Amino acid sequence: MAASSRIYSLADLAEMLGGAVAGEASTLIRGVAVFGEAQPGDITCLLPDGHTHDLARTRASAVICARDPREAVVPLIHVDDPRLAFQSLVRLFGPEYFRPTLGVHPTSVVAADAVFGEGVAVGPQCTIEAGARIGDRAIIMAGCYLGVRSSVGEDTVLYPGVTVREGCTVGACCVVHAGAVIGADGFGYVFEAGRFQKVPQIGNVVVDRDVEIGANASIDRAATDTTRVGTGTKIANLVQIGHNVVVGRHCVIRAQAGIAGSTELEDSVVIGERAALNDHIRIGQGVEISARGGVPRSVPANIALSGSPVVPHRLFLRIIVCMRKLPQMFQRITALERRVTRLEEPHE
Amino acid sequence: MAASSRIYSLADLAEMLGGAVAGEASTLIRGVAVFGEAQPGDITCLLPDGHTHDLARTRASAVICARDPREAVVPLIHVDDPRLAFQSLVRLFGPEYFRPTLGVHPTSVVAADAVFGEGVAVGPQCTIEAGARIGDRAIIMAGCYLGVRSSVGEDTVLYPGVTVREGCTVGACCVVHAGAVIGADGFGYVFEAGRFQKVPQIGNVVVDRDVEIGANASIDRAATDTTRVGTGTKIANLVQIGHNVVVGRHCVIRAQAGIAGSTELEDSVVIGERAALNDHIRIGQGVEISARGGVPRSVPANIALSGSPVVPHRLFLRIIVCMRKLPQMFQRITALERRVTRLEEPHE
Amino acid sequence: MAASSRIYSLADLAEMLGGAVAGEASTLIRGVAVFGEAQPGDITCLLPDGHTHDLARTRASAVICARDPREAVVPLIHVDDPRLAFQSLVRLFGPEYFRPTLGVHPTSVVAADAVFGEGVAVGPQCTIEAGARIGDRAIIMAGCYLGVRSSVGEDTVLYPGVTVREGCTVGACCVVHAGAVIGADGFGYVFEAGRFQKVPQIGNVVVDRDVEIGANASIDRAATDTTRVGTGTKIANLVQIGHNVVVGRHCVIRAQAGIAGSTELEDSVVIGERAALNDHIRIGQGVEISARGGVPRSVPANIALSGSPVVPHRLFLRIIVCMRKLPQMFQRITALERRVTRLEEPHE
Repeated sequence: MAASSRIYSLADLAEMLGGAVAGEASTLIRGVAVFGEAQPGDITCLLPDGHTHDLARTRASAVICARDPREAVVPLIHVDDPRLAFQSLVRLFGPEYFRPTLGVHPTSVVAADAVFGEGVAVGPQCTIEAGARIGDRAIIMAGCYLGVRSSVGEDTVLYPGVTVREGCTVGACCVVHAGAVIGADGFGYVFEAGRFQKVPQIGNVVVDRDVEIGANASIDRAATDTTRVGTGTKIANLVQIGHNVVVGRHCVIRAQAGIAGSTELEDSVVIGERAALNDHIRIGQGVEISARGGVPRSVPANIALSGSPVVPHRLFLRIIVCMRKLPQMFQRITALERRVTRLEEPHE
Repeated sequence: MAASSRIYSLADLAEMLGGAVAGEASTLIRGVAVFGEAQPGDITCLLPDGHTHDLARTRASAVICARDPREAVVPLIHVDDPRLAFQSLVRLFGPEYFRPTLGVHPTSVVAADAVFGEGVAVGPQCTIEAGARIGDRAIIMAGCYLGVRSSVGEDTVLYPGVTVREGCTVGACCVVHAGAVIGADGFGYVFEAGRFQKVPQIGNVVVDRDVEIGANASIDRAATDTTRVGTGTKIANLVQIGHNVVVGRHCVIRAQAGIAGSTELEDSVVIGERAALNDHIRIGQGVEISARGGVPRSVPANIALSGSPVVPHRLFLRIIVCMRKLPQMFQRITALERRVTRLEEPHE
Repeated sequence: MAASSRIYSLADLAEMLGGAVAGEASTLIRGVAVFGEAQPGDITCLLPDGHTHDLARTRASAVICARDPREAVVPLIHVDDPRLAFQSLVRLFGPEYFRPTLGVHPTSVVAADAVFGEGVAVGPQCTIEAGARIGDRAIIMAGCYLGVRSSVGEDTVLYPGVTVREGCTVGACCVVHAGAVIGADGFGYVFEAGRFQKVPQIGNVVVDRDVEIGANASIDRAATDTTRVGTGTKIANLVQIGHNVVVGRHCVIRAQAGIAGSTELEDSVVIGERAALNDHIRIGQGVEISARGGVPRSVPANIALSGSPVVPHRLFLRIIVCMRKLPQMFQRITALERRVTRLEEPHE
């Protein structure tokens, strides 16, 4: 863990977290770390569903744990939810690496009619085209590109090298990671006169508020109208979202997943790592697709699917057990055929 | 749909499209949109293979449709091919966001001996190395990198943040989307003296004319000689093309697909989303690999394959039906075994 | 093959390679190429495990081959290991495109307290934040971003557009290809108060020495502590490595593979193209996962696995044979059932 300049007593931390100290309440804490990495001066955490750790072996100066009976071989803070408490401490002690300078770096190229909110920070080497709009307190890091009439909402952060193409919108309170591309042309052609003619992709992308988009992910602009990502949705690295896709609110799309053109996700859908959805289908609210799932057709709400093509998760678990036994099964069938043939022979 | 400053009468549009008006020919049209998004002033389209839409419910001022008998509850243009007509209108009404300034932006860094055609536009923050060549009317958007002795053909567009490494060529009339990397080193090592020694990757990439390459796609340079992409081929986002691959003409490679080193695609091959081809194989002309297909070996021309590993598409459809019934099938076999055992018992 | 200005006699080359000439030792060689591409003036190679080539049909001026009896219809160099010899020649004749200018390009923005070793080259349009450290002879190409307190080791090359976020370390003698992102936030949220709350990702990434990272790959920073990549490991294009992953030494991770959060790879693991590993699992030393493998749980050392979910490779080969026969198998079972029913009928 990187060092931090803040120091708190265990009593102070317990108060912040609504927890109870067991052991020396005046213990001073300077940082937070996971169990295996914690050093003297750090506080760490015993997660209820984590590995069982031997408290006596930690080097940490204190440990957060659930409200269960436990010998305080090291000072403890008992809390209702150790995971949330740990996160609060991470926020408290986390190094603040990132302090962008307000204003526009002189190496960036900004169109005269771009519109800036208050407290905006634009790093070096950016290009901001005509009519682009940047909301209050947004942070645009080095090397980003904002196309003509694009917009970035208030309190949004674009990490280095993000491209937001013309006419596309990223809402407020979003985080877009390095190298993500928002608004590249959808993949549409018609074969005509001996070659693929490009279908003009003149729609755009609208990303609502509180969305996170991973590194090197790409979200294509619509052919016409709009590719949409709903409020609160989280998209991981290297995800592909095709043209005219509509993603609902509070969805989770894990790394390297792909959603083909015009597919719609209702709210609260979870798409596992590297799962892939066909085009022009609809995924009902609350559906969960496991990692590596392949989804060729629409799915009604609130079911968990796995496999490629997907089946209900429980059926999938039974199928994969069968698959491993397939070679035996063939032998059993061949043996049966032999036995039945013998039975069919006329009895002497 | 973004607004457009052009206005046409329905009669004008019908003439352009070679169609026939049914209804009020003087209706004024200001834009084009898909059926569900169209607003008054827009024209929209009834695609023959699309969803059935109720003409009476559109808000559009006019609708393009096939030459079939149909009540003109809204003004219509009957055409032979509604899809093509729609595309023409998209081109006609599409907002022209993108008007790059001719010349080289002063923030770009250009080697003294780089060679520029006429009418070239180079955006801000680009780096163009020694001996690079840019054809007439090419557009190089912000933050692109053209390596030593690389070349970009006439009328080609590179979107922001494209890298074309040293010695690589992108032909005429190509479109390369943001973040694509052309000519990174192929992935070649030999394990020797206790570590992986890098095999120098000194070949290049040659992309022929009329090729499109998606956002954050990567096409590796050859170890020696050339990784090739043929004329008219379209490559989507996040595709990986390995070193020494040869892709034929008019192929389609959908998003997140991958082609491992030295594999060859003949002309007119279609690779579905996220399909993956092994190295050192050959895919015959006109082959279609479905989404998520895995191709471990060479494939003769003109067949459609699905699954991983791939099998003929029809067989695949039958296999996946069987897969869902595998648990039952095991039960049926066990039941058969029991029945046969009973039959085999000596008759009393 | 790009031209080279070096010329050697076959005798000279044989001496360098520790080989023996058969045929005219004064033959002059100007370049190296693969068998099918070689032109007069080139030397080429007959690889032992390659396709059988007809020596008489090469256009090359000389051929490297193993120490086997063979008629010298073209001048030969017999060597112990033709592959290594070929690589040496590739290094010898390879064009040296890449000669970066020492120092920092004036268009780059460098924090006052960044620390530079000797002989460093920083290309145009880079941003190097406060406290970043760059080792001796490192090369940072155009448009790279080095975050606050990041570091890049000696003799390491970053190709254009690489992002190394705050606090992350790339070791010595590494190669990072264009568009790679090191240290983007891990994908961690808790659903709380009606939305996904971001779990702060305050750890970092440490990449050891002699590592290669492919174009547009992404390696996420740890939530707390460190995502690690061990010495000598090679990572291809578009690979995703999640937060808190630990990759051992001398591993190979092929293109588009993905490793979910907190998973650990011991040393010398090979992950095939597009293989995907679940989170929180451990992969033993020397394990090989085939292309497209899906790994849902931990794997002990030294086995080869294939399929999704993975099974031992030999079992996988038998399973896929069975899969193709599934439709027939169903017919065989149905036929058996009919036959057994007939046998069970009371004999008249």
